[in-house]
Amino acid sequence: MAEAKRICTFLLRFIAFSTTLAAAIMMASSHERTAVLTLSFEAKYSDTPAFKYFVIANAIASIYGLLLLFLPSKSLLWQLVVALDVVFTMLLTSSISAALAIAYVGKKGNPKAGWLPICDQVNKYCNQVKGTLAVGFISVIIYMLLLLYSIHTVLNPLLLEKS
Amino acid sequence: MAEAKRICTFLLRFIAFSTTLAAAIMMASSHERTAVLTLSFEAKYSDTPAFKYFVIANAIASIYGLLLLFLPSKSLLWQLVVALDVVFTMLLTSSISAALAIAYVGKKGNPKAGWLPICDQVNKYCNQVKGTLAVGFISVIIYMLLLLYSIHTVLNPLLLEKS
Repeated sequence: MAEAKRICTFLLRFIAFSTTLAAAIMMASSHERTAVLTLSFEAKYSDTPAFKYFVIANAIASIYGLLLLFLPSKSLLWQLVVALDVVFTMLLTSSISAALAIAYVGKKGNPKAGWLPICDQVNKYCNQVKGTLAVGFISVIIYMLLLLYSIHTVLNPLLLEKS
Repeated sequence: MAEAKRICTFLLRFIAFSTTLAAAIMMASSHERTAVLTLSFEAKYSDTPAFKYFVIANAIASIYGLLLLFLPSKSLLWQLVVALDVVFTMLLTSSISAALAIAYVGKKGNPKAGWLPICDQVNKYCNQVKGTLAVGFISVIIYMLLLLYSIHTVLNPLLLEKS
């Protein structure tokens, strides 16, 4: 039972690592060159501070996720990991929310502020950002599950006595 | 010692409740009517989905915060509160990040996307949003502290044995 749980946690951590890494790479590689009349311009993630923040946050989280994959299961550092998970869950939540808010303006615009949607001009770029946000969303959900599971484990006296 | 801790936690919870309530009210009441040439228009929070989300998230969190103020300290529900704290911390983090991302575009614009800053036209509105985000930020920090404190308490074997 304990073994199955360890494998399950390891799998979740591995998916969390993969999705954060994939999200960082996908966002960093998203760009599209387009021409409006005679004016050629390129849309890329680094034009938008929120997307840059998303790349940095996911890159840091994927390094953290990678390190945890090699942490021995008996290590006392796992006690610290719960607290670090809180911080990283917040970081990822914050980065995906900021990116999502900006992507929404890119998609729908904001008529009152006079911000026009840009997705008609750079459709491929928009779709890639959309895919990236979906992948990033998976990692946020997994970190939330891992956090709730850790809390459940440490709060459950029966499980605690066994360990 | 335990008494001092309880008072301290209660105070933090009270500040968390007050700041979320204040943030929701401040954002919901932010508006400014301005005229550009002969065209009069009004900037208000409900024009921006991210600001609406911020109001709703902070309103829900303030109801949660209020309920917790009346929860007896011996109640078994406090075990559930740690898990709920995770969810509400993520909700608040997400709402403030989205609002911040949009406020940043409002302040600085995004030249590449052709989105012009609007803060020059509606300066009072912008300052109110800025103040609201600062208040919202306090509540996020407090929820993070409460969460880390809960985790520290349940993970610390000495404290756990005493209780």
